[in-house]
Amino acid sequence: MSPRTVPAGTPLGDDFHVYDTTLRDGAQREGVSYSVADKLAVARHLDALGVGYIEGGWPGAMPKDTEFFARAAAGELELRHAALVAFGATRKAGTTAADDPQVRALLDSQAPVVTLVAKSDRRHIERALRTDVAENCAMVADTVAFLTNEGRRVFLDAEHFFDGFRFDPDTALRVLDAAVTAGADVAVLCDTNGGMLPLGIAETVAQVKDRTGFRLGIHCQDDTGCAVANSVAAVQAGATHVQLTANGYGERAGNADLFAVVGNLVTKLNMPVLPDGAFSEMTRTSHALAEIANIAPDTHQAYVGVAAFAHKAGLHASAIKVDPELYNHMDPVDVGNGQRVLVTEMAGRASVELKGAELGLDLAGRPDAVSSVVATVKERESQGWSFEAADASLELLMRAALNDTGLDDGTVLPFAIESYRVLIENRGGEVVTEATVKLVVDGERTIATCEGNGPVNALDAALRAALSPSRPWLADVELSDFKVRLLAPQGAGETRGTDAVTRVLVESTDGAGSWTTVGVHGNVVEASWLALVDAVAYAGLREGAPVAATAG
Amino acid sequence: MSPRTVPAGTPLGDDFHVYDTTLRDGAQREGVSYSVADKLAVARHLDALGVGYIEGGWPGAMPKDTEFFARAAAGELELRHAALVAFGATRKAGTTAADDPQVRALLDSQAPVVTLVAKSDRRHIERALRTDVAENCAMVADTVAFLTNEGRRVFLDAEHFFDGFRFDPDTALRVLDAAVTAGADVAVLCDTNGGMLPLGIAETVAQVKDRTGFRLGIHCQDDTGCAVANSVAAVQAGATHVQLTANGYGERAGNADLFAVVGNLVTKLNMPVLPDGAFSEMTRTSHALAEIANIAPDTHQAYVGVAAFAHKAGLHASAIKVDPELYNHMDPVDVGNGQRVLVTEMAGRASVELKGAELGLDLAGRPDAVSSVVATVKERESQGWSFEAADASLELLMRAALNDTGLDDGTVLPFAIESYRVLIENRGGEVVTEATVKLVVDGERTIATCEGNGPVNALDAALRAALSPSRPWLADVELSDFKVRLLAPQGAGETRGTDAVTRVLVESTDGAGSWTTVGVHGNVVEASWLALVDAVAYAGLREGAPVAATAG
Repeated sequence: MSPRTVPAGTPLGDDFHVYDTTLRDGAQREGVSYSVADKLAVARHLDALGVGYIEGGWPGAMPKDTEFFARAAAGELELRHAALVAFGATRKAGTTAADDPQVRALLDSQAPVVTLVAKSDRRHIERALRTDVAENCAMVADTVAFLTNEGRRVFLDAEHFFDGFRFDPDTALRVLDAAVTAGADVAVLCDTNGGMLPLGIAETVAQVKDRTGFRLGIHCQDDTGCAVANSVAAVQAGATHVQLTANGYGERAGNADLFAVVGNLVTKLNMPVLPDGAFSEMTRTSHALAEIANIAPDTHQAYVGVAAFAHKAGLHASAIKVDPELYNHMDPVDVGNGQRVLVTEMAGRASVELKGAELGLDLAGRPDAVSSVVATVKERESQGWSFEAADASLELLMRAALNDTGLDDGTVLPFAIESYRVLIENRGGEVVTEATVKLVVDGERTIATCEGNGPVNALDAALRAALSPSRPWLADVELSDFKVRLLAPQGAGETRGTDAVTRVLVESTDGAGSWTTVGVHGNVVEASWLALVDAVAYAGLREGAPVAATAG
Repeated sequence: MSPRTVPAGTPLGDDFHVYDTTLRDGAQREGVSYSVADKLAVARHLDALGVGYIEGGWPGAMPKDTEFFARAAAGELELRHAALVAFGATRKAGTTAADDPQVRALLDSQAPVVTLVAKSDRRHIERALRTDVAENCAMVADTVAFLTNEGRRVFLDAEHFFDGFRFDPDTALRVLDAAVTAGADVAVLCDTNGGMLPLGIAETVAQVKDRTGFRLGIHCQDDTGCAVANSVAAVQAGATHVQLTANGYGERAGNADLFAVVGNLVTKLNMPVLPDGAFSEMTRTSHALAEIANIAPDTHQAYVGVAAFAHKAGLHASAIKVDPELYNHMDPVDVGNGQRVLVTEMAGRASVELKGAELGLDLAGRPDAVSSVVATVKERESQGWSFEAADASLELLMRAALNDTGLDDGTVLPFAIESYRVLIENRGGEVVTEATVKLVVDGERTIATCEGNGPVNALDAALRAALSPSRPWLADVELSDFKVRLLAPQGAGETRGTDAVTRVLVESTDGAGSWTTVGVHGNVVEASWLALVDAVAYAGLREGAPVAATAG
């Protein structure tokens, strides 16, 4: 790829840059630690989404980043839409760019684009860099010139720009001028400390644009909770390059969230910044990148959160039945998300009917079943259950109400449980876990014992071992995640006790899809067991296996 | 209290309203379910923080809310700063306000202030309410007049105002006019579907202010990720009443976060909207309200998040040692938060030294200890450990490096572990858990067996039973929270295996303070055990008990 090539799939060509820095600035977030394989996977997701630039890291400063660029250049990363960007600093004071090993590492990365970070606040130049404005500008100009002469496209990240511009506008503008005169294509104004508000951002961007005529970019941190708004305001004021991170990952309060900013650019400013068909991949991409970062997705994230279009109020839920578009700012399907109705103790009959329809069940003609579901949900939620994130358990409960299985607990179990036992032992450092379950399956008593790497894993194995002779399709089902939450008695609604209860959410998959079930108990193992049993019952539903209830 | 009284502690008197709706609109958030006692506790926290208005709920529509107002009026809620607000709808079409039981319930609540919600988008009036603009305006005017005649102060929430104003500005303004002419004090413009951006909000607020001269309020939802910015932009454009929720709780993507908006008003717009001394209570209040809502605090929340001033980058960490104020947009102490340095595999020696200083340990003169801590942290984090949220485990590790205890695992254990065993059994529905631990304590072999309501609880009890004869102060220590996270192999850095590992964080308290420890293992029970052992070792440190290491 020629270093100056405009990324192929970007709908606005070179006119507007969606620039992702998840792999560099996003990795500054507390708790994030990407392996090289993770970084390659993140880059592939971002490229598939159609961002124009992927900042891969800081070669020469971080060993993992150096390896990432080497493996990308060796053919492990084929990009269809994006250009790869190496991030780095200007030459050190008192050397030449060619002799600076750190600048050399940027070239060695073989990335066609380099983003250089430079100080633009005089206080930082003098107190952190311990040099003067003239030498700082020379460092910028030399390094930009060296890299452009080597055929690289160069962007300049002007660090602490907004604070610096307020303190000493001339110094801030001199740094931009040094970079652009030496060949940098974009001067990126960074709100590094994140203290700005949108009206101030818009005013400064417009002023700098007016005074310099340079192509401007924007990079916002979220310390005022305004990074998304600040980024959009900068674009409205004339910035044509916006630096973002997936899900807003970043240091302190984070960066501007790629999905919210792109969502706003596309739906509010009518700027088609992603290739055809990619916008509806936003939700999937957001969740996949959370998975790789090993951070639970933010359920309330704008546009892509699981709850972003979830309606709880009984009042609104009944109106939504009439006219859904009056209650959403956009069609959730456009970003690959969906409208959800939350069934909670606050919800009325309308919510339950809507939720049933969402799950493919017709509750509209069965007022008795609706009443039974509403009553069961209210009672269970008062004990700490939550069905909002456990659609599979809720569907079992609704089906029980419709089928009238006669089971007291309202679930639809294709077997009866006699007992289980779990033993965990640590002798001299070695840990062994063993679970035994005793079931009555299709009238026959079955006992299975399995080891596992923990109590839930061992119980899951034993439960499936007991069932799989009669249900061979269970071999394809596996537990993909479990979450444990200790509910303080004060949070558990009106039910007050001396002991906390534990809520376990189990996510299962059969390769074709995944589903979530819930269990609540004072004992985490029993809570897990309840969720595992629901998971297996739901797998039977998916498989089309008869969900005949035996006596509990 | 006379209904028209201005709240006593509000620094700007009646000139500016910080209006909290956590208990009504915030409760719409997925997963939130307040008991009446929770609601009273939330109101006390908000009043102590000094907000001007607390919207307590919708009496007459929600039984819990009716009870909340009754108990508040009966003397269970003494407010020093805030006025209590009841939320409700205007009279139904075709009735009178006096005859509408819902309007009557607002009076019966005895709240001195009532906020009425009304439709201001013609499409909603016609399609959801199924009435016309004239009748809608009559409903507004009648209800406002009825309540003001009864001595109530009335605010009007103009629902879907921004969408309605864009669609049909005359109808939207007629609704405001009906309310204010009938006696409403504030016309609150609501971005109910949350689709606005700050520049548009500012423009509309300024225009409405210009055309009507009414006192305006703002209520923003976060569907574009801009609720905080939109609220601040509205204030900059002339709104003098801002409706917020604690931590941004609310339906879908949530509402505007009280702490971020107040943080911005105070530090960026120099508006002293809280009473003297209250600003530094923001962080504590935010976390307390998260606790009551039973939602994990957002670590990356602006101003009040645990990570809001946490620096990870080795580059910045060394500069922060020189000049901290260059790297924060404000002094974290002002909001009761603190700067933190995150010790991770990305961090260098400077971070470890700074972190040591934060924990009260002087590592500056001990380069060998710094090297050992850096190496141990890197190695453990590659296996899935995370010390970012487990300062107590990190301090034990640092003390081990400084004291040279000679233990291979680098922790400081005042006893040796021989073995433990946990048994969980469910026979016919009854669950029994029993744990046995065998320790060598001060040279003596000790065996203890305890039951518990789960494996961690039973192990914790048995561990403390074995230790408490020699350490009676352990009676005051208890496990206050535990969190479990399954780490997918792909997220665990470079260590790839066929099995996931589990990370457990245990929070302990001795009444005077709390501390967090971490354990990581393939088995959740072993991971919990490791964190419990660290918790007990750290309790010893706090107690000043000698932390002598016996042979492991």
